[in-house]
Amino acid sequence: MATSFNHFEDFHLGEIRHGGPVLIEAAEIQTFAARYDPQSFHLEEAAAAGSFFHGLVASGWHTASLTMRMTVEALGVAGNFIGLKVSGLRWPLPVRPGDQLRADIEITALRPLRSRPAYGLVELQVSTLNQLLQPVQHMHTATLIGRRP
Amino acid sequence: MATSFNHFEDFHLGEIRHGGPVLIEAAEIQTFAARYDPQSFHLEEAAAAGSFFHGLVASGWHTASLTMRMTVEALGVAGNFIGLKVSGLRWPLPVRPGDQLRADIEITALRPLRSRPAYGLVELQVSTLNQLLQPVQHMHTATLIGRRP
Repeated sequence: MATSFNHFEDFHLGEIRHGGPVLIEAAEIQTFAARYDPQSFHLEEAAAAGSFFHGLVASGWHTASLTMRMTVEALGVAGNFIGLKVSGLRWPLPVRPGDQLRADIEITALRPLRSRPAYGLVELQVSTLNQLLQPVQHMHTATLIGRRP
Repeated sequence: MATSFNHFEDFHLGEIRHGGPVLIEAAEIQTFAARYDPQSFHLEEAAAAGSFFHGLVASGWHTASLTMRMTVEALGVAGNFIGLKVSGLRWPLPVRPGDQLRADIEITALRPLRSRPAYGLVELQVSTLNQLLQPVQHMHTATLIGRRP
């Protein structure tokens, strides 16, 4: 896990940070889905084999949540790292048991905030990749990161 | 839990379906965050008290995941219900331990798909509300729902 000592001032426009890898296994896919996305192609191997996905796949919200973990670790923000808004969240390929996920996190905008002087607005383009470096998720997010005291 | 027998043909433009309620408690907030969003305001009561949020709050991804569960149950889709894209995902107010969440799910577009004749495209505007009926999350999502065989 990355050390957590970064403030708004430590990020640079165009910089790319790398998160992960994180391994996703069938048991975690099924446990997540049982509570948060109870559909048969996330829960049961046999039913999943006959589904749209031809096998067990992770909930997109599971991929998004693991991506958040990789982003928190990769950015190592000291104090508060607060999501405001997400757009363009999509899942071009399914995530399957045994996949190893990584995240590429590009800083696409940095702006001090007049309304909240203790924070800066940081926009991120986050792509989640599997072990074949195929994208399994894309999103753009606007966040608040604390400024150096 | 809703019965799962609905196909594309069972949804109507402008219709609003209601999901939930679901109770969110501190232990679940902390368990989710430990794996998916390890920040102190999701993990530790004492640290959270001194944070931006003045108390323990749920990860936005946790709220999104619970909203998916409520949506799956409220729509009761027979077979496959597949998220393609999410936009305008935002969290206007934090979710706190003991909150009871509901989801209002409006059908904003319905379109048969020439490229995938077994599915229809269904767009949803989903608002998640707490027990005071304050919105805690908004999003717009494009999904595939299977057509009646």
